[in-house]
Amino acid sequence: MHNPIDRDTIKLIEKSIEPHMKKKRFQHTLGVMEAAGTLAKQYGADIYKTSAAALLHDYAKDFSKEELLIYVEKYSIETDHILELAHQLLHGKVAASIAAHEFGIEDEEVLLAIEYHTTGRKGMSMVEKIIYLSDFIEPGREYPGVETLRKLALEDLDKAVLQALTNTMIYVLRTGKLLHHNTLEARNEMLMK
Amino acid sequence: MHNPIDRDTIKLIEKSIEPHMKKKRFQHTLGVMEAAGTLAKQYGADIYKTSAAALLHDYAKDFSKEELLIYVEKYSIETDHILELAHQLLHGKVAASIAAHEFGIEDEEVLLAIEYHTTGRKGMSMVEKIIYLSDFIEPGREYPGVETLRKLALEDLDKAVLQALTNTMIYVLRTGKLLHHNTLEARNEMLMK
Repeated sequence: MHNPIDRDTIKLIEKSIEPHMKKKRFQHTLGVMEAAGTLAKQYGADIYKTSAAALLHDYAKDFSKEELLIYVEKYSIETDHILELAHQLLHGKVAASIAAHEFGIEDEEVLLAIEYHTTGRKGMSMVEKIIYLSDFIEPGREYPGVETLRKLALEDLDKAVLQALTNTMIYVLRTGKLLHHNTLEARNEMLMK
Repeated sequence: MHNPIDRDTIKLIEKSIEPHMKKKRFQHTLGVMEAAGTLAKQYGADIYKTSAAALLHDYAKDFSKEELLIYVEKYSIETDHILELAHQLLHGKVAASIAAHEFGIEDEEVLLAIEYHTTGRKGMSMVEKIIYLSDFIEPGREYPGVETLRKLALEDLDKAVLQALTNTMIYVLRTGKLLHHNTLEARNEMLMK
């Protein structure tokens, strides 16, 4: 139904998701859409694609482990050992499946941007990079270094993604969590450019 | 010639390597052998194996990129994209090949401890863990946190290895270097225990 994605699709998705999301999460979602829109304009990406991905990226973020696993089963989502143990990493994959099956999104770039917005991955498209990065720099984010990252995002998308990946990895290491190999592979790839 | 590895083997290796190593590197090597000996005693590992691995682990550390690549060619050492770009990561593999081909070491545990002492890997043996860790806590090492790590090493080998892996990863990330997937896999494995 939402192919190709246009202004009406975006309005419809926005209206559909609001009642199902916590207010704070919805505000963050709108922030990501705004930041992604700015980056899409800067780098010549499709603003409807970035908007659709932004709106749906955190749709499953507040799902419990049990809810996530129900969707994993329902939509035959492929997982791995790390994803099963660090179940919060699953929310992107679940949101991508919901986007496809329940919102009728067929655009592969949009679905991948939703799926990999938490870990990143090797070979990210422009839309994926924009969503990954916007999640860190949307107007509601406040942390030491965010202004530097916002500035870098407008100057050099790849360098900013590299910085965001590195920041995330250091955070994961410091907090004693499992680190997904997709994040390492994404960072190494950016570093080798 | 050195199978099984005994006291005489260790003396012979020590005498053979000294003239080929920088004084500071040789001192570090003896420090690693000492620390590894303490951990071998603590955890019931073979002290001759840990000593042989300790003595030879950094044998190729001061080789130039060109020298390392000559050995890669000579002994048909398997590399990967990361190892080729971050050539300093190659010195363990080169030292393991030299240990096998030029020092006659056949013990697989010793060879693997030398090979993976820089990156670590999933499925490290006791000897590998001891060498990996001793490299960080030998008496010559001085850095914030080393005393805590020395203490932890005597209490819980796996926890200490996990801490050393995490410290290394944070250092690599902060200094903008490529991170080898073996290190991530080693840490995730330790964390899942």
